[in-house]
Amino acid sequence: MPSISKKGQLMPQSPIRKLVPFAEEAVKKGKSIYYLNIGQPDIKTPKIALQAVKDSKIDVLAYSRSEGSETYRQKIANYYKKHDIIVEHDDIIVSTGGSEALLFAFGSIMDVEDEIIIPEPFYANYNGFSTASGVNIVPVISKIEDNFALPPIEAFEKLITPKTKAILICNPGNPTGYLYSKQEIQQLAAIVKKHDLFLIADEVYREFAYDGNTHYSIMQESSLENNAIVIDSVSKRYSMCGARVGCLVSKNKNVIQTALKFAQARLSPPTLAQIASEAALETPQSYFDDVIEEYVERRNTLINELQKIEGIKVAKPKGAFYCIAELPVKNSDDFAQWLLEDFDVDGETIMVAPAGGFYSTPGVGLNQIRIAYVLKKESLIKAVNILKEALKVYKD
Amino acid sequence: MPSISKKGQLMPQSPIRKLVPFAEEAVKKGKSIYYLNIGQPDIKTPKIALQAVKDSKIDVLAYSRSEGSETYRQKIANYYKKHDIIVEHDDIIVSTGGSEALLFAFGSIMDVEDEIIIPEPFYANYNGFSTASGVNIVPVISKIEDNFALPPIEAFEKLITPKTKAILICNPGNPTGYLYSKQEIQQLAAIVKKHDLFLIADEVYREFAYDGNTHYSIMQESSLENNAIVIDSVSKRYSMCGARVGCLVSKNKNVIQTALKFAQARLSPPTLAQIASEAALETPQSYFDDVIEEYVERRNTLINELQKIEGIKVAKPKGAFYCIAELPVKNSDDFAQWLLEDFDVDGETIMVAPAGGFYSTPGVGLNQIRIAYVLKKESLIKAVNILKEALKVYKD
Repeated sequence: MPSISKKGQLMPQSPIRKLVPFAEEAVKKGKSIYYLNIGQPDIKTPKIALQAVKDSKIDVLAYSRSEGSETYRQKIANYYKKHDIIVEHDDIIVSTGGSEALLFAFGSIMDVEDEIIIPEPFYANYNGFSTASGVNIVPVISKIEDNFALPPIEAFEKLITPKTKAILICNPGNPTGYLYSKQEIQQLAAIVKKHDLFLIADEVYREFAYDGNTHYSIMQESSLENNAIVIDSVSKRYSMCGARVGCLVSKNKNVIQTALKFAQARLSPPTLAQIASEAALETPQSYFDDVIEEYVERRNTLINELQKIEGIKVAKPKGAFYCIAELPVKNSDDFAQWLLEDFDVDGETIMVAPAGGFYSTPGVGLNQIRIAYVLKKESLIKAVNILKEALKVYKD
Repeated sequence: MPSISKKGQLMPQSPIRKLVPFAEEAVKKGKSIYYLNIGQPDIKTPKIALQAVKDSKIDVLAYSRSEGSETYRQKIANYYKKHDIIVEHDDIIVSTGGSEALLFAFGSIMDVEDEIIIPEPFYANYNGFSTASGVNIVPVISKIEDNFALPPIEAFEKLITPKTKAILICNPGNPTGYLYSKQEIQQLAAIVKKHDLFLIADEVYREFAYDGNTHYSIMQESSLENNAIVIDSVSKRYSMCGARVGCLVSKNKNVIQTALKFAQARLSPPTLAQIASEAALETPQSYFDDVIEEYVERRNTLINELQKIEGIKVAKPKGAFYCIAELPVKNSDDFAQWLLEDFDVDGETIMVAPAGGFYSTPGVGLNQIRIAYVLKKESLIKAVNILKEALKVYKD
């Protein structure tokens, strides 16, 4: 039998996916599950986006331009202006989700064995894109005790080698919920300028900044004109994860020209979803106000409830809709499986994401879980109560 | 300024794209252009597909499963049965276009510096996917004199090295229009079995087989259970290129499990387009009958008209909707540019795809062009007349 590639063997499985069979089995046995493990919001997609697709007059569902339609890119540039990010439409390449924008960025700036520094815990799929691109992630640990703030800049500096090509941050962070301050972004700006690196920022949660904090984009640092690459997506912003539309943004013309070649090879981003995404830009501010209010309430509920549990450590998220909790267990993989297989409160249990998959350093984060607060307040209260009861009886 | 990757520098530009500025300039000057250069059909998308999206009741445009929805994959398996291809839904991974299926296949079976043998001329984007994957294409030349039939199997055998992991064919072929016979497929089956290689077949033009010929899939060769990987797409079949939905099909469980990991990293294929694609499977046979009749008529018109031109050599396509023509010019890149810049018949000119980009061997095919017969008969007649007049006056 012909063999699978080494790359294919190294590709990580989704850290959440391995629990799915246990969840399916639990459901078969009649258990109800509160899904705290996935970043699929329950928030409704703006009607204006879905209606635009229904109203579209299409005879031939044709390719769009590889870089995305010009009108859509112009409207994206306008959207950025409202966020004090000054870019032109030709600084933007529309991608099939933020995922593809990351692949384009990795391919454009890194070769096999090159290195990218990422504060961990980080979005698990960065591992997958790195493996697919043959690139090595060099993690720098951020700590739950510091709320997952940016590690001291010296920690980055120590890790820079001739193979280092970029630093990647997710801001606000999945899975940490941390929102980097302007000062932290400026520290990163200084170090990438000093060492001639790219700074990639995954800013797909831009709008989800709480407690009066505003998001500060790497694109607002004018000194980073040639260094900054922003990864963006409509998925979370408009609760339209299934659209698969995102974009790559950079003022560095070489990056854009190179990413465009990757974009041309795959012809075009999805046309129907671009229609929805273009219309979504007309979503009124009141939609976001309501969504943010909802998430803040959920976050407060979640954190308050979690803090009542003895032995739990939790970072207070300032953005996005995730939080990392450290549990009094040895291995959260085992614990998460046990929750599905062997535990329930009145026929209900919870599914959580073990945090090991969000770290690149082996053995770190094994006692942590990621909780996505994408459920209604009442469900979150019940879910945390299940966690509390579970920890009372669970034995490692 | 931080530097672009070697891979990014090596990524090929679309061979068609470099002509676009000249076409735009021609249009600005008031010229009309017959576009023979692109594979975007003018055929209408089945209404049933577009209507399904309009009728969909979606509140939250959510992720689908990474491998595509189960009902859609089951229906795809049913579709294959009608084509004598026996696969189960879990032999199928839904992808974002055939493009992504190719990337998944390349990533799953090849590492950097591995080799893949492809008869040339081939679909230009195979170059892009190979470069993105760090894989080397080893071309084997098929000839216009042979109508681009499969080169002698000894020609393949000579090229096999320890680094060879696969043979890739496009059947029916873009840009050749050649339809491989059952016997040719069996020759390929024997050689991949003998050398323990994968056989990848890009079968996105399956329905476009003319003159009473039927398409013979590599999946119909039961001996290839572990070797065969089919790349498929809804783009041309239902004239819905902008959907960006395709699939990877294999009975080799290791391939599917590995491709799934690549699929998980990018979360899911586009949800709206999957709704359209699932509905498109209900397209009645009469739609295809009409489309095939239309293409056969166009092909006959095109070939007849081309053969009237002195000094032109043309391969008669048996499938797809492309043909390669060899012109009495030295360099079809220059000729194609000249057509746009300096030539017209009554204010009309043509845009063609220089065939050099469809070859991997440098210097081959420079006097050839690819013509996509995606225009109506009357337009094709006018377009070929323009070509004829142009060749009378063009000087290398």
